[in-house]
Amino acid sequence: MNAALPTHLMPHVDPRPVPASLIDGLRVRFGDRLSLAAAVREQHGRDESPFAVRPPDAVVFCESTTDVSDAVRLAAEHAVPVIAYGTGSSLEGHLLAVQGGISLDVSRMDKILKVSPEDLLVTVQPGVTREQLNREIRDTGLFFPIDPGANASLGGMAATRASGTNAVRYGTMRENVLALEVVTASGEVIRTGTRARKSSAGYDLTRLMVGSEGTLGVITEVTLKLYPLPEAVSAAICHFPDEGAAVATTIQLIQLGVPIARCELLDANAVTAVNRHAKLALREATMLLMEFHGSPASVAEQAQTVQEIASEHGGEDFEWATTPEERSKLWAARHQAYFAAMTMHPGCRTVTTDTCVPISQLADCVVAAKREAQEAGLPHYIVGHVGDGNFHIAYLVNPDRPEERDRAEALNERVVQRAIACGGTCTGEHGIGLHKQGFLVDETGAGTVEMMRLLKRALDPKNILNPGKIFAL
Amino acid sequence: MNAALPTHLMPHVDPRPVPASLIDGLRVRFGDRLSLAAAVREQHGRDESPFAVRPPDAVVFCESTTDVSDAVRLAAEHAVPVIAYGTGSSLEGHLLAVQGGISLDVSRMDKILKVSPEDLLVTVQPGVTREQLNREIRDTGLFFPIDPGANASLGGMAATRASGTNAVRYGTMRENVLALEVVTASGEVIRTGTRARKSSAGYDLTRLMVGSEGTLGVITEVTLKLYPLPEAVSAAICHFPDEGAAVATTIQLIQLGVPIARCELLDANAVTAVNRHAKLALREATMLLMEFHGSPASVAEQAQTVQEIASEHGGEDFEWATTPEERSKLWAARHQAYFAAMTMHPGCRTVTTDTCVPISQLADCVVAAKREAQEAGLPHYIVGHVGDGNFHIAYLVNPDRPEERDRAEALNERVVQRAIACGGTCTGEHGIGLHKQGFLVDETGAGTVEMMRLLKRALDPKNILNPGKIFAL
Repeated sequence: MNAALPTHLMPHVDPRPVPASLIDGLRVRFGDRLSLAAAVREQHGRDESPFAVRPPDAVVFCESTTDVSDAVRLAAEHAVPVIAYGTGSSLEGHLLAVQGGISLDVSRMDKILKVSPEDLLVTVQPGVTREQLNREIRDTGLFFPIDPGANASLGGMAATRASGTNAVRYGTMRENVLALEVVTASGEVIRTGTRARKSSAGYDLTRLMVGSEGTLGVITEVTLKLYPLPEAVSAAICHFPDEGAAVATTIQLIQLGVPIARCELLDANAVTAVNRHAKLALREATMLLMEFHGSPASVAEQAQTVQEIASEHGGEDFEWATTPEERSKLWAARHQAYFAAMTMHPGCRTVTTDTCVPISQLADCVVAAKREAQEAGLPHYIVGHVGDGNFHIAYLVNPDRPEERDRAEALNERVVQRAIACGGTCTGEHGIGLHKQGFLVDETGAGTVEMMRLLKRALDPKNILNPGKIFAL
Repeated sequence: MNAALPTHLMPHVDPRPVPASLIDGLRVRFGDRLSLAAAVREQHGRDESPFAVRPPDAVVFCESTTDVSDAVRLAAEHAVPVIAYGTGSSLEGHLLAVQGGISLDVSRMDKILKVSPEDLLVTVQPGVTREQLNREIRDTGLFFPIDPGANASLGGMAATRASGTNAVRYGTMRENVLALEVVTASGEVIRTGTRARKSSAGYDLTRLMVGSEGTLGVITEVTLKLYPLPEAVSAAICHFPDEGAAVATTIQLIQLGVPIARCELLDANAVTAVNRHAKLALREATMLLMEFHGSPASVAEQAQTVQEIASEHGGEDFEWATTPEERSKLWAARHQAYFAAMTMHPGCRTVTTDTCVPISQLADCVVAAKREAQEAGLPHYIVGHVGDGNFHIAYLVNPDRPEERDRAEALNERVVQRAIACGGTCTGEHGIGLHKQGFLVDETGAGTVEMMRLLKRALDPKNILNPGKIFAL
């Protein structure tokens, strides 16, 4: 886990006072589910970002929508911030109590409320994690594809508009959240969306809440799309002479409309880290890790096409993983890349970029980022959901050497500005949080951010919902 | 085209005064592109809905974003409504100037601004129609799949969150609009979204604008996803003993994950209308009209699966249309069903439902709607994008017989309430407009509509952007 990183990168706002009367009110309502313990508060004041811990004043362990509603209502009376907390795996400082306040831990809201196999839908409480969901619905023959690296909570994944390795085929949380139950800034409980696959009924509040990082409401129920487990699944790895060749292969696949389910880039550094961490023996060279879903015939056909295109770009050593065990091992290794790299560099912290660019620009962006990192002499690795145009270059920095931190931030800045210049975004799936507020303005323009502020003020006039995230207010 | 229908179904609000100084200002700025002619105003005060014409006070023919921005700015100074107008094909009264004001005709903004085949993207002005777009990009090997019945403008399609026959495979405007340029209520020009396929950069303003029916901003540019033309396409029709059997087939296809591209239900009445209008000789019985996209092998495999499932449900007379000409003829006929039915009932107007329900509920909903219409003795037909759970039962009513109108409205009410009761929506793709404002409250709850109102007030404090649509304010 990352510990403290540059406070100079965090906007400074004085914490708001939390009156004793609020704490008293919460204690009456929640009893020993209210915690003021330092260790509990510290745990809730951090995430996987490189920011220093900013503990909340108190933590309430919510077990129901009514709990969330009552806690928000009490906090609202005193204009005190509330920050929803799932598993603590976000990467942009979303959970830090930069203005103080109450952390609403929803991890105990971990019930799968309704599985509707015939409608390919499930409704869950926000604390259910993605792995738990897939475990519990295994018997239905369905699965939920969105898989950020961590075993995140589905409420948190909705709040950050998360995606992962399957997005190229199945979309992100944007496409896969069908409906929500949300507690508003006044503690009211509302519902957005229905169980219908599509709707033109008024403003798309579901998608306004998805990605709003807890700043517009607290998510208390999530209705998600499920998918039939594919009849056939096959994973493959293929090595390339360099990142450019691997990405060129990807670009061609996407342009041809090959319905590939996963298409992940790992540079040689990432493969090395994954090898050591997961005790694999992959060749330590630039690699695409792919997966194909469909009927047996369709999977075979896709694989054939991919192999041909990869060969044209110098791809070699095409290897198949057809058993579920082999596949699981490969994908588990891929998901652990972040921690694997940190294990290789003990004491280091990770500064991760998250740009997403139009697919035609991806090779240039990846190659330039790689070159700059090499020139800067910082340990780094690249993993990418390249089918989407999204890649992460991560820099490992020694927190005792501020110049490394500065170099990483300077590299990050170049990666982001290059992405924005070619029509891309500063964040494909991690969110804005604390770190990218300036980039958001660069990307969208001040007028667009001002529109976001207008929406925030309208729905949260006291600015109590995860204040200080996405933009200063 | 429909003419006048029940004014008692329209919320009454007095038109706001349009001061002579505004008209003067518009004339100075726009010259003869400002029209006060009655015929022009009448044309802009109607759509394909069964509502009586409500002409705007003036029409401005906009040719650029700056035109739109300047017109909105002038209108805002006088708190006068503005209503964007594309092709006039909406179905829920969206274009009616119920509070008076200025119609901003954007049909001359019909340029395709940028085609990026390598990124599978296109940026268009809002007046480009869906057919024009597909015509102009034909050489790229790409297509844009969203196809409401009418040859609507892409700005209008974004504003109503339209879909059509391809949504089961390719999604709706919700999934296919990647970015927008929007003129705000103050006349400012902002951009939402980027050219990246996914993003977690702040609030999803793109999807807030998509489906907002012109009430939050005027769309002046739309960036859309394109798709590679499938290598193989095959269409098929299959007849069924009744609607229940056709829908049961559809449900099973969806639950199995067959990647069908189009799956349309036509009841016998719809087939009859289509036969007469398009001079076809289809058997006049309940029918599924389907299309399969993919590689030749994948299309063959899908077709085989569908044929087997259909047979289990009594489907027979499977017929193939493999040439582009045959397919085009069938789909053109399908798209003309609305007009075909009106041609069969001269002088009648159409009251169309647009419910969308969870797929498991679809058979019950379709069968009940059919039975009720038969019992009521009203001419009717059913067409449905049944792969999405969306179907339209349309009632043809004689405007000189108010009791028919009332019966149609009573039937509509039952269809909608049944959809809402089983977790569906009152509108899958047509929007709320004027007619469904009560249904919106029934569907989402008063608290949710109040949240929509808060957003509207925040972005349009003078209530000038298509006021009176979606909800009263």
